[in-house]
Amino acid sequence: MDLKIPSTNQKRLVIIGGGFGGIEIARLLKNHDIQIVLLDKHNYHCFQPLLYQVATGGLEPGSIAYPLRKFMQQIPNGIFRLAEVLSIDSSIQKVHTNIGEITYDYLVIATGSITNFFKFPKEVSSKMMQMKDIPQALNLRSFILENFEEALLTYDESKKQELINIAIVGGGPTGVELAGALGEMKNNILPKDYPEIDFTKMQIHLFESGAELLGQMHPENQAKALKYVKDFGVNVWLNTMVTDYNGDEITIKDGKKIKSETVIWTAGVKGNPIIGLDAKNVLPNGRILVDEFCKIKDTENIYAIGDVACMQTETLPKGHPMVAPVAIQQGALFAKNVIRKEKGKELQKFKYTDKGSMATVGRNKAVMESNGIKMGGFIAWVAWLFVHVMSLVGFRNKITVTLGWLYNYFTYDRTLRLIIRPFKHNKED
Amino acid sequence: MDLKIPSTNQKRLVIIGGGFGGIEIARLLKNHDIQIVLLDKHNYHCFQPLLYQVATGGLEPGSIAYPLRKFMQQIPNGIFRLAEVLSIDSSIQKVHTNIGEITYDYLVIATGSITNFFKFPKEVSSKMMQMKDIPQALNLRSFILENFEEALLTYDESKKQELINIAIVGGGPTGVELAGALGEMKNNILPKDYPEIDFTKMQIHLFESGAELLGQMHPENQAKALKYVKDFGVNVWLNTMVTDYNGDEITIKDGKKIKSETVIWTAGVKGNPIIGLDAKNVLPNGRILVDEFCKIKDTENIYAIGDVACMQTETLPKGHPMVAPVAIQQGALFAKNVIRKEKGKELQKFKYTDKGSMATVGRNKAVMESNGIKMGGFIAWVAWLFVHVMSLVGFRNKITVTLGWLYNYFTYDRTLRLIIRPFKHNKED
Repeated sequence: MDLKIPSTNQKRLVIIGGGFGGIEIARLLKNHDIQIVLLDKHNYHCFQPLLYQVATGGLEPGSIAYPLRKFMQQIPNGIFRLAEVLSIDSSIQKVHTNIGEITYDYLVIATGSITNFFKFPKEVSSKMMQMKDIPQALNLRSFILENFEEALLTYDESKKQELINIAIVGGGPTGVELAGALGEMKNNILPKDYPEIDFTKMQIHLFESGAELLGQMHPENQAKALKYVKDFGVNVWLNTMVTDYNGDEITIKDGKKIKSETVIWTAGVKGNPIIGLDAKNVLPNGRILVDEFCKIKDTENIYAIGDVACMQTETLPKGHPMVAPVAIQQGALFAKNVIRKEKGKELQKFKYTDKGSMATVGRNKAVMESNGIKMGGFIAWVAWLFVHVMSLVGFRNKITVTLGWLYNYFTYDRTLRLIIRPFKHNKED
Repeated sequence: MDLKIPSTNQKRLVIIGGGFGGIEIARLLKNHDIQIVLLDKHNYHCFQPLLYQVATGGLEPGSIAYPLRKFMQQIPNGIFRLAEVLSIDSSIQKVHTNIGEITYDYLVIATGSITNFFKFPKEVSSKMMQMKDIPQALNLRSFILENFEEALLTYDESKKQELINIAIVGGGPTGVELAGALGEMKNNILPKDYPEIDFTKMQIHLFESGAELLGQMHPENQAKALKYVKDFGVNVWLNTMVTDYNGDEITIKDGKKIKSETVIWTAGVKGNPIIGLDAKNVLPNGRILVDEFCKIKDTENIYAIGDVACMQTETLPKGHPMVAPVAIQQGALFAKNVIRKEKGKELQKFKYTDKGSMATVGRNKAVMESNGIKMGGFIAWVAWLFVHVMSLVGFRNKITVTLGWLYNYFTYDRTLRLIIRPFKHNKED
């Protein structure tokens, strides 16, 4: 079996991964004299920053997913294959996938990141929920709702407490945004849906091993975010390392135990490298060492961009932050360098333009910083909405998300409280 | 374990099933002196007539599903339980569910219908797709898309034909609407998504054992629908009984075989009765015999409404059609009779008001008939859209569906071509 990619006179660029970086390359090399083959194990691009809204019933998966085949309709020199890459063999310039193999002239690894449970063994990590893709977000949505259904039937008060509590591990943007969304649900929606549950007893815990939330942001914004999250009734545990979880109780470093049937791990990601790379170029955290052209060290024509790439610089010895703008800018750099090469121009080195960062914490509240400007509150929140809507791929998704948010905002509601595929039973099997 | 339903001085009405009929009862008995307990195995009401649009990527599940807990917020005397009913015991007025048991004063069985494969054994029927609930519609969406992905990799022309063909068994409204939607996709969307597949070779087959499509409608409309479906390139097989299916090929009565990896069975439904009813009151097709008050024969306080009920009359010896309006009207009758009983008034008998029927066949084309008026074409299509939007539960769903349709109409697109949960691999395991 092979991938049935026609041979042309053009050089062939194989991109592994249709995330932010991968599609940026395809977009910029559209109509250029190169054959683009995009591989992804899903047939859609997923706008990961809004996964927490899918998990909390604010948006449907279709609002944050965009079909890659529809995207590729605009790229006449592009071909898409739904394929899972198994390994690469750089000596013969080949990618092995679950549907066959393909040769390349250029290869870009844009596989992003996966959850990093660090030293937790499988029997602990498998009891926690993740939120890195759409099925995981839908599982989380089902799981939380299933726990409420179970809680209201439970006579055992301790068990009930376990079922209604939610714990989030990791105080980065994902953890903070999720905590805010859950705090909003606790205040506005859940008491009406489940009048038999006393939601004043519901605890939302947010654990952060560092000394502050949103570690990358300015201390002023960190303080604001902390205040906002607390205002939503979230219990924030700073300087608190989670050391164990048995499915019912979290253990933190000082031995204290906190009950929660739902634990969402947002405390770490790691690169998602490909088998077949020289081991010395893959860091223990799964990121691949690249030079300032995003080329993988010791290779001729293999590149890595985005979360999976680690470009160590003097100011960033651990590489760039694992966020969408880096992936997009590295994708753009790679694409432009391919064009420069065609034209015999000198290649450019990567220079990251940090456009700032932002995080929302429930309705009307967000923090953002950009080019030395810091903002909080309502204006930051509107800016957050705007930036996220504009970053979505596809006109329909932009409209759907905007209208969904308008509806949710004015009704104080999130109507997608649907257990389409029950998860809990499967998990417990 | 029990359902933790508080005991009150009120009589308790237990409704099994939150479909069209079940929620109509709860709506009309809101604020009356009766305790309403609504049981459903899903936590949402599903607008089944639009499931085919979920399957074909035109709508998201959240647009046609409405959370039952949100619905019950409006019913102060109502309680919802996510529960699967296992059986009833009328001698002690008890319902047994997977989460415990509950007693009732009145019981209404509103469990609707399930797919009826008639005499096909499990090894045949399990190879066919169904479309009676949201997970099934999503599985069908995934399955069709997975088959196209596989088709373009296949060198074997015969296998490729199998993979791109789609067969629908049953020429009722569901089959006709699905055939129209698929015909539209074949013409407008699929060739752009899969430029490597020659969709002129794709065959959409619609098998109907009777002499015409839309058996319940006027012959003029039947002829129109047949023309519309054929205009979309669908191969219609009238008077054609499907006798076997092996996963690759359908066999029809005269022994002829038609290749298709996707076979969607819409040729029959049957009542979905409850264990514990007197067997002589349950017909072989699963429908429960009721009198003109919807009361199950030989019972004092157990009722059945909608698809699962069969009220045999002189003009309708097989009972009423299994459609939403019957369920809604029977639910309304039951609710009003409960109120009449309270007030000591005489109970009313059920009288079905047939508001007519309609079916759409892709863009701009539909047939409808109501009160002796027959219409086809664009006006009928607009009427179809209007009636369906207005029948959806919830303002958000009305808006989402309207906008989704407007988008799809003007762009000739359906953007939800997403394989969120691959189905094929699981099916083949």
